[in-house]
Amino acid sequence: MTEPGSTRFRLGIAYDGTHFRGWAPQPGLRTVQGVLDDALATLLRKHGPVASLVVAGRTDAGVHATGQVAHVDLSDGQVAALARSRVRRSEQGPGALLAGRLTGILGSATDVVVRHGEMAAEGFDARFSALWRRYRYRIADGAAERDPLQRHRTLWHPRTLDDDAMGAAARGMLGLRDFAAYCRPRPESTTIRTLQDFSWSRDADGVLVAEVRADAFCHSMVRSLVGACVAVGEGRLPVERPGQLLATAGRANEFAVLPAKGLTLLEVGYPPAAELAARAEQTRARRAALDSGAPGAEDDEDD
Amino acid sequence: MTEPGSTRFRLGIAYDGTHFRGWAPQPGLRTVQGVLDDALATLLRKHGPVASLVVAGRTDAGVHATGQVAHVDLSDGQVAALARSRVRRSEQGPGALLAGRLTGILGSATDVVVRHGEMAAEGFDARFSALWRRYRYRIADGAAERDPLQRHRTLWHPRTLDDDAMGAAARGMLGLRDFAAYCRPRPESTTIRTLQDFSWSRDADGVLVAEVRADAFCHSMVRSLVGACVAVGEGRLPVERPGQLLATAGRANEFAVLPAKGLTLLEVGYPPAAELAARAEQTRARRAALDSGAPGAEDDEDD
Repeated sequence: MTEPGSTRFRLGIAYDGTHFRGWAPQPGLRTVQGVLDDALATLLRKHGPVASLVVAGRTDAGVHATGQVAHVDLSDGQVAALARSRVRRSEQGPGALLAGRLTGILGSATDVVVRHGEMAAEGFDARFSALWRRYRYRIADGAAERDPLQRHRTLWHPRTLDDDAMGAAARGMLGLRDFAAYCRPRPESTTIRTLQDFSWSRDADGVLVAEVRADAFCHSMVRSLVGACVAVGEGRLPVERPGQLLATAGRANEFAVLPAKGLTLLEVGYPPAAELAARAEQTRARRAALDSGAPGAEDDEDD
Repeated sequence: MTEPGSTRFRLGIAYDGTHFRGWAPQPGLRTVQGVLDDALATLLRKHGPVASLVVAGRTDAGVHATGQVAHVDLSDGQVAALARSRVRRSEQGPGALLAGRLTGILGSATDVVVRHGEMAAEGFDARFSALWRRYRYRIADGAAERDPLQRHRTLWHPRTLDDDAMGAAARGMLGLRDFAAYCRPRPESTTIRTLQDFSWSRDADGVLVAEVRADAFCHSMVRSLVGACVAVGEGRLPVERPGQLLATAGRANEFAVLPAKGLTLLEVGYPPAAELAARAEQTRARRAALDSGAPGAEDDEDD
């Protein structure tokens, strides 16, 4: 919940993860949130302590995003300072102004951009209001054109993969399931998720593109799901095997967790404004019940 | 013409120009041809002296390509050595084998890829048989989404540009014209070209994309044409002005030559096989007549 005397802003963020050690701040390492928190402090610390960003999907080292969503709470004094800084572009509201000023401060760090900013709707929480996250994974296999300009966001695979078999394997994992076989184990933390969409197609260059959507993902889950499909596409695993693994406890070792570079967070879905607060409340309550409030429980929103 | 006792191969090449000092070899500098000539020598020098690549469009420092075309002549001994190296992939012809082996030698240099290889049709010359070159220039202006993953091949422009005006300005330059106002001057060298296509559109992210096609380009010509349109899109030049400049001698200074990073060579067009040799002969004869064989005349195929 937003504190009295403060305003919550919703930000849309894009980054090339290549030169970041992931989203979450780590001492001495360059991370996306670290860079953004520093920019916020540069912009607003004269006007009081600056809150940290809260994010929808805390991406791992090397993972990219075009549709990341975060929120930050600014004090009334900070909002007023922001409004006063509005000189010529008088048509801009405080949210657009915040995004523009942050992007200006980031300046030469062109691998992260604050694309949008707006005052958040009542009850909005970037993490807990989210209904789903959508990721993409790109593989240029032996049947695809390799484009050096897209190499930072594409895994190059030497052999040709059977995309029909991969699509069938993906369909076999859909639904509300226990994804323990595809998650890095964490004590006291649930691995039950709803996989809403998982499909494979080839783009104009023949690049294999997976679209994966779930209510939430546990750590390295997308890259494990995709890795299991690649094992099928190579003929090393039967088409049914990735789905069968959902019935097993513990992490599977029949496939590789694929490299981060092929993975991009595309979009985060939220309910209509009237349902934002209820959704956040519901997510928090379910987490508390499932996770018993154990430390580290909040890490299960990562990929 | 191909020497007796040798075979000409046609190669399709893609590169991210960011970390290259252009196509043409330069002592001590990393260039695309330099890297490829080195790989050819590694592969074949045991079997006799290795020829240099001949290219369709000698791109400038920082310019990218997805559809570059080059040829290289290999001796019979080199072709035989290549064929002997074919171990398991017995279905591959010598051209595909050459492309695969070169890409293998390039290995970690993933910013250049030899996408295709084939034995060239009779009379084929990558440079002189070409009918046209097609380039793309990408600008993310104030109305576009900035994607950090595409920043290496996209110019970020702070203001919003008038794309309708830019399209009208581009149409005013089409046809067989003297592009002296848009070329770096070279003594004894012609600046007459046929601009076959020059159009502006916005992609799904709102990024302004110029497609430019001509029989050939002189040095920095695409980036000058695009720069003139940007001056129109900013309201600094009247829509008619870029076309009017075609009637002037000497280089214009009313617009900027845009940075190389936004520019990609997409495609090189060739006539049907039966016309390849005649086209090459015709291009050579026209050049000789126009340029009087002056040194440096061959530089007028660059951008």
